[in-house]
Amino acid sequence: MTKEIKNKKNQMSFDFDGSSEAQTITEEPEETVKTNKKTAKSESEPRTKQADAATAESMAAKQRDISVSEFFAKNRHLLGFDNPRKALLTAVKEAVDNSLDACEEAHILPDITVTIKQISEKKFTIIVKDNGPGIVDKQIPNIFAKLLYGSKFHSLKMSRGQQGIGISAAGMYGLLTTGEPVQIISRTDRRKKASHYHVQIDTSKNKPMIVFDETCDFDLPTGTQVIITIEGKYQKGKQSVDDYIAQTAMSNPHTTIIYNAPDGENYKYERQIKKLPFLPVEIKPHPYGVELGLLYKMARESTAKRLSLFLHHDFSRVSSKLGADICKKAKLSPTSRPVNLTIKEAEQLHTAINETKIMAPPVNCIGPIGENELEHGMKRTVEAEFYAACSRKPTVYRGNPFLIEAAIAYGFKTEQNNGDDPDKQPQMELKRFANRVPLLYQQSACAIYKAAVDTNWRNYGMSQSKGALPMGSVALMIHIASVWVPFTSESKEAIAHYPEIVKEIKLAIQECGRKLGMYLRRQRRIKQEMAKRGYIETYLPYIGEALQEILLLKDEQVKTVVTRLKDVLEKTRQI
Amino acid sequence: MTKEIKNKKNQMSFDFDGSSEAQTITEEPEETVKTNKKTAKSESEPRTKQADAATAESMAAKQRDISVSEFFAKNRHLLGFDNPRKALLTAVKEAVDNSLDACEEAHILPDITVTIKQISEKKFTIIVKDNGPGIVDKQIPNIFAKLLYGSKFHSLKMSRGQQGIGISAAGMYGLLTTGEPVQIISRTDRRKKASHYHVQIDTSKNKPMIVFDETCDFDLPTGTQVIITIEGKYQKGKQSVDDYIAQTAMSNPHTTIIYNAPDGENYKYERQIKKLPFLPVEIKPHPYGVELGLLYKMARESTAKRLSLFLHHDFSRVSSKLGADICKKAKLSPTSRPVNLTIKEAEQLHTAINETKIMAPPVNCIGPIGENELEHGMKRTVEAEFYAACSRKPTVYRGNPFLIEAAIAYGFKTEQNNGDDPDKQPQMELKRFANRVPLLYQQSACAIYKAAVDTNWRNYGMSQSKGALPMGSVALMIHIASVWVPFTSESKEAIAHYPEIVKEIKLAIQECGRKLGMYLRRQRRIKQEMAKRGYIETYLPYIGEALQEILLLKDEQVKTVVTRLKDVLEKTRQI
Repeated sequence: MTKEIKNKKNQMSFDFDGSSEAQTITEEPEETVKTNKKTAKSESEPRTKQADAATAESMAAKQRDISVSEFFAKNRHLLGFDNPRKALLTAVKEAVDNSLDACEEAHILPDITVTIKQISEKKFTIIVKDNGPGIVDKQIPNIFAKLLYGSKFHSLKMSRGQQGIGISAAGMYGLLTTGEPVQIISRTDRRKKASHYHVQIDTSKNKPMIVFDETCDFDLPTGTQVIITIEGKYQKGKQSVDDYIAQTAMSNPHTTIIYNAPDGENYKYERQIKKLPFLPVEIKPHPYGVELGLLYKMARESTAKRLSLFLHHDFSRVSSKLGADICKKAKLSPTSRPVNLTIKEAEQLHTAINETKIMAPPVNCIGPIGENELEHGMKRTVEAEFYAACSRKPTVYRGNPFLIEAAIAYGFKTEQNNGDDPDKQPQMELKRFANRVPLLYQQSACAIYKAAVDTNWRNYGMSQSKGALPMGSVALMIHIASVWVPFTSESKEAIAHYPEIVKEIKLAIQECGRKLGMYLRRQRRIKQEMAKRGYIETYLPYIGEALQEILLLKDEQVKTVVTRLKDVLEKTRQI
Repeated sequence: MTKEIKNKKNQMSFDFDGSSEAQTITEEPEETVKTNKKTAKSESEPRTKQADAATAESMAAKQRDISVSEFFAKNRHLLGFDNPRKALLTAVKEAVDNSLDACEEAHILPDITVTIKQISEKKFTIIVKDNGPGIVDKQIPNIFAKLLYGSKFHSLKMSRGQQGIGISAAGMYGLLTTGEPVQIISRTDRRKKASHYHVQIDTSKNKPMIVFDETCDFDLPTGTQVIITIEGKYQKGKQSVDDYIAQTAMSNPHTTIIYNAPDGENYKYERQIKKLPFLPVEIKPHPYGVELGLLYKMARESTAKRLSLFLHHDFSRVSSKLGADICKKAKLSPTSRPVNLTIKEAEQLHTAINETKIMAPPVNCIGPIGENELEHGMKRTVEAEFYAACSRKPTVYRGNPFLIEAAIAYGFKTEQNNGDDPDKQPQMELKRFANRVPLLYQQSACAIYKAAVDTNWRNYGMSQSKGALPMGSVALMIHIASVWVPFTSESKEAIAHYPEIVKEIKLAIQECGRKLGMYLRRQRRIKQEMAKRGYIETYLPYIGEALQEILLLKDEQVKTVVTRLKDVLEKTRQI
């Protein structure tokens, strides 16, 4: 029985780019295949009740392509679909990320509506609608029902999406758990009707299938609406969809988000800033970030006629003069053709690049949220007594520009504490963002957590155990903006520990921490002064009485002396 | 300039299965594409110095396929190639895993030779040779230079490899960092010469390219030798290649491994057991692990003529009678054709399956290392005073059979401690294995770590802080064998926190822990007895003298009395 199934599966997958493969693999000496069965068997120890011994030939018959969708369907926890609650969040997140990216790319202030309807105990329908530019019909099936398809992977530019997996993975998860295809309504032109597609992924081929399509009405001049039905679980609190929407509003003050939760509650986050954020431009790779093998490949595939021009055209920050200088340093002719470069020569070129001083990459590819906007965002969600924020200058890891921002809010009331009792202090709340997207899972695996834990918060007047976040009613928000955020998994939940990134986060935390420290010291001084003032007010009358007795003063004189004494004592205090 | 580069890239990737796509996507209304440019623009706010506003059309022009190799080349940390030291380990590991799998599948006792040569400061050549069945010529390019290609992904059977990524990813990393192709020498027949291939991956297409091939001599009748040159770093100690090889020898006592380290040292781990381990067979999926969408897909693609036979043939543990029963419970005709199943009917069938009692899946698809073998393995690497081991019975998570084994070694000498001073006690050493492969990274993200930390080790006489591993010269080894190990990332370093898995690991730990606890209590009693014996021996002579004075005994009598007293006192002790 098992064999039958196997054969069937083989047939199914053989169509998958089998034809083009034959061109690449030139030699297929068939004769080796038939004769080795016995030889290999004589090497083995046959055993009963267990599997039969395989031969090179029988193993070859089982080797085949694995479609990337099959791979991720089986490894869905890599994409953030580990459990129903997280699955609901991940699906919403992927759709909202795409909507925001599309609006910003088209320079449209985003209006997003998220609606979640509970269909049955475990079944939810997610509807995300935006006022973006819409999606051209022929791209809809690919974008929503094919993994590893998109516009952002190959461009060095800050964006929320980067992998071309997210939204189609959400659709695939929906299909797997409920059997329902993804629906997309998209309108790209106010003079036309919208298109309505039902698409689903063919997981064994990673290809989109159109189940149904028609034209329909749409209440916005342009925009996109995505409808996904999945097995999920709705639960409020930390790491919930509600939490994600609130944090998204915080890091995107230029966006209006309406959220209709499955329990019937409606939330509206109005935009705070009526202007688009910094709109990043695309850059070319920086020479320092390119490895030998990649440099070799780029040269061989370049259309440039001269080696120096290849360096100038295909990389950022290499002038044609600098290109020629690098060639000379590598002992290669600047006029040689890049397509003829040998691996040996590529090695020389690679060494020369890394020995040459080249300006850091341009930073107009990434944009901060901004210090004011960060403080503003914090104030919207957390009512605290003290706020501070800072945006660091852009810097570089492995050739990729990035920048770090931090904001801190201190002294708010939470459910666990009343703000005063030090024994009931909660741990610091850490809010992590990457390219304006809130990260809700895998906190302890994240570079941001590491930097926060490694910071010595006692310097800033807070209590902290070793290897832990500090205690107190403090919220720390960290934002990393980069052309390529190095996530630790496809689910984009935590940032890898690149030393350059951890260092910058620490510096940003320190900047905010110092301001907090100053505030806390000042608060402490005020408290001490208040205590002193209390003493003065308590004891001054007795001093007055004593002076009256000693110096035989009149009541009037005593009053004057006491008032003066009070003034003098208060002046010596510095608040 | 940027635009030019983009166009070039587009051309490169359009050949990638572009033709077959046209068949799937039926409708491409081209007319919508041209007209919407102005409309979308009028929606936007044009800004200077930043990126131009995109339209649905301009965005569509940038959408394209991302090859899975490009994806992993950019996300190489997902595959375990984060840094040079780890990259060296990962490459060795992938090659050795493949060799062991191939030998076992062909029922050959594995002889593996691993040689690492340092070429320059950062460049290493890795050579892994096995006596397996060899690889058929035409499969060599696919196996070594194409991601997501292999025989293990689609079969439910215990094996080291499962994803079809590992060895080709190592080759790709080598190509990227050194530009050198992977070399494979393989012989499948003692009457023929071996084949020698140089292959490399075309990352923009995820297709293998044969650089060079020839026939050559090989000193074994059958076998495979892989040669990969990569940028790496060799450093001894924890998480080193040396560590990996030693642990692999421990979990594979049927294997001989010769390891020639780059510093010139040679290690030989002789096989301890001259018989092959349990050889797993392939099973069909269990109905409980199948989700609605997948059930629907399987039915539609089944060759079975009747619904009841579909259940019987395509799943394990469903007899034809049980298949008919499930159909009845779902209110579907057992004789209906599975290909005609609707999604509504699939839902009924899915509910019926989960309401029916079905036997747990067969367990001959997974095999333990074995308690004796585990203890043996521990003894080879750790010289301790106490050992215990246990193999749990197989059980199931999400339809996948798995089993847990644990072994413990207590009271060895390490560099940090002399075995006695409790202040200098190190933390427990945790050794993690999945399908006999040692896991060296991401310990704290692993289900094994979680189970070890959640165990109350004080019950077994050890000291432990909350949320930490216990202290003491103890090594704990945990092995999970499964048809599908749920790793937290493609680099296969940690196991996801499935509750069923964590629970089984805890039970295995408890079994070993109780034995350790008994041993430790006994040891403590012996110690106390020793102390008592010391007291007896110290004070008995004085008691003798006192008795002599009081009772006026002779010296002889005193001796007898003292000897008797000693006997009596010692008998009352229970050791």
